[in-house]
Amino acid sequence: MIGRLNHVAIAVPDLNAAVAQYSDVLGAEVTEAVDQPDHGVTVVFVNLPNTKIEFLYPLGENSPIGNFLEKNPAGGIHHICYEVDDIIAARDKLKAEGARVLGDGEPKIGAHNKPVLFLHPKDFCGTLVELEQA
Amino acid sequence: MIGRLNHVAIAVPDLNAAVAQYSDVLGAEVTEAVDQPDHGVTVVFVNLPNTKIEFLYPLGENSPIGNFLEKNPAGGIHHICYEVDDIIAARDKLKAEGARVLGDGEPKIGAHNKPVLFLHPKDFCGTLVELEQA
Repeated sequence: MIGRLNHVAIAVPDLNAAVAQYSDVLGAEVTEAVDQPDHGVTVVFVNLPNTKIEFLYPLGENSPIGNFLEKNPAGGIHHICYEVDDIIAARDKLKAEGARVLGDGEPKIGAHNKPVLFLHPKDFCGTLVELEQA
Repeated sequence: MIGRLNHVAIAVPDLNAAVAQYSDVLGAEVTEAVDQPDHGVTVVFVNLPNTKIEFLYPLGENSPIGNFLEKNPAGGIHHICYEVDDIIAARDKLKAEGARVLGDGEPKIGAHNKPVLFLHPKDFCGTLVELEQA
């Protein structure tokens, strides 16, 4: 069912420092920062040859990564995102297998303008898993 | 400098449960478990089209992931691994830029029989970074 690893998302407490470490020190290609007010984050991508790293930095008062950064002040990996061909079929299979889909179970439009769902970390080795329609 | 994302390593408290979730529920291709006594882990790979997930399960008395699982009893992402063409050149550049290479700074032979180094999480957004010779 799952396909490509679309991205690994890292919540960062200092976006400029993260960009500098990945571009200057690790020599990676890093995109411009883009504010996503609907998602409460500013996003930067690190483009690797086979996938992406997504830096998430809080935007606004109620950023969904605010609590995470309070618990992890140096930053840390927030979630991993797998692509699926059919997000509704994926959701229905997951629910039938007893996996917990977060929220109301309906796909939302994610940061890449595609339908996404999040799965409960306790069902997947302590990792928050995002599924994104490919 | 960094190239492909070679793998995302997830420490798991129950290897059979992790394999079942990824193979049966997420429908991914999962390899047989391999004991790596020199590294204190049993390893399973989830083969995705563009990269791998590596499950790490403790093997023996002094597994390097024992402390991590005590702090994260449900499991969690332990490290991410980027490929580099020349690990010695990469190390020298990193040290010149002030990044901390763990251990004595000499590459070790990693779980894939290639030279690897680990970088200090505090220098890279709170994430433990492995570099592996491509």
